[in-house]
Parts: sequence; C-alpha cells; structure tokens
Amino acid sequence: MFKEIASIPKKEIIPGFRGRFVHTEQSTLAYWEIDAGAELPEHAHHHEQTTQVLEGQFSFTLEGETRICEPGTIVVIPSYAKHSGKALTPCRLLDTFCPVREDYQ
Amino acid sequence: MFKEIASIPKKEIIPGFRGRFVHTEQSTLAYWEIDAGAELPEHAHHHEQTTQVLEGQFSFTLEGETRICEPGTIVVIPSYAKHSGKALTPCRLLDTFCPVREDYQ
Repeated sequence: MFKEIASIPKKEIIPGFRGRFVHTEQSTLAYWEIDAGAELPEHAHHHEQTTQVLEGQFSFTLEGETRICEPGTIVVIPSYAKHSGKALTPCRLLDTFCPVREDYQ
Repeated sequence: MFKEIASIPKKEIIPGFRGRFVHTEQSTLAYWEIDAGAELPEHAHHHEQTTQVLEGQFSFTLEGETRICEPGTIVVIPSYAKHSGKALTPCRLLDTFCPVREDYQ
C-alpha cells in the first residue's frame, strides 16, 4: 500500500491532460500533468471533487465564478457542480474524487 | 468554494502535529505541519485514508510494514488498518479521508 506516484502509468484523458490515478475503495486521487493552453470543457459529475494546483497557473471556473489558481489554493467542487478550466502555463494538479472515478480505472 | 489553505486556522491534534482541514460532504483533507521527532501512536479508524509527504521524511508503519516516506510516495490505508509514524525531520503531510473526519471538524 506504499506507491511511488512516478511509477504509475499516465493516461491522456482529454487532449493535453495526462493523469496518474490512485484508487481506494471509496475515492480516487488524480495527479495531472497539463500542457499550457489545454482546456477542460464545462462538465459535471456526481462525484465530489477537490482540485489543487501543485505547479503553474490554472484558470478554474466553478458555477460561473472564475479564479486563477496557483499553489496554495484548493477548490471544493460539490456533486453535480458545473466546472471548466484552462492551463495558463504548464501545470501539475492534484484532484480528489469521492466516490471512485470508475471511468479512470 | 475557492480556499487559501494558509488562511485556514491550524489545530494541534496531537503533540507536534498541527493540521489545517478542508471538509467536503464526504471527505476530509488534512494539511499537517509536524515537528521533527513527533510521533503518531498506533491507531485505526473506519475512515479510509491516504498519506503523502509534501516535505521532509516521515517513517510510516502500516500493518507492521515500515517505510521511510518522502515526497513522491503515497500510502493507501484501508479502513481499520493499524498505522503509526514518526517525523524524522520537520514534515509537511497531506492526508485524505473518506468519509469525513468528524473529530477534525
């Protein structure tokens, strides 16, 4: 149950968004490497989510409110809340989801 | 729903372990600042947990297996698994819990 994050294979889920995923019974953690300029189209899902920028600048829009996020900020995204974003620089992000993102398994 | 982590008040939960907590409906994220030498006694809980070292070296024991964890490692702690630890240096750790740690609210 000790994992080296760098040893987890990356999957490109949408163009410019490459993720490494850790799944527990009830949650998923996603480590993203994102190309500058890559865009996350608006979407929503039943999973609760948090998003933290580990490196870079990411413009995050949650239910119509946009903020430029940098390390030190966490975004809490309730179930079914609409969200979208754009990497303003190359970024590393950490997302958490509850329950498990089965589509990332 | 955009939070600056540094603006969250810290609480000393056990000696040498000061945490900032973000609670969602179904999960808790805990950002710990830990003094060198501080010890986490063996314990277990029904919450699933993950632990990541963000800075420093933390000796983590999970169900009898001990590893020295540094940035880049994630520990996945199943519900009711026994765990303990010790900060070998000043540390910053990020834990996730599911469901919510009501005792940290």
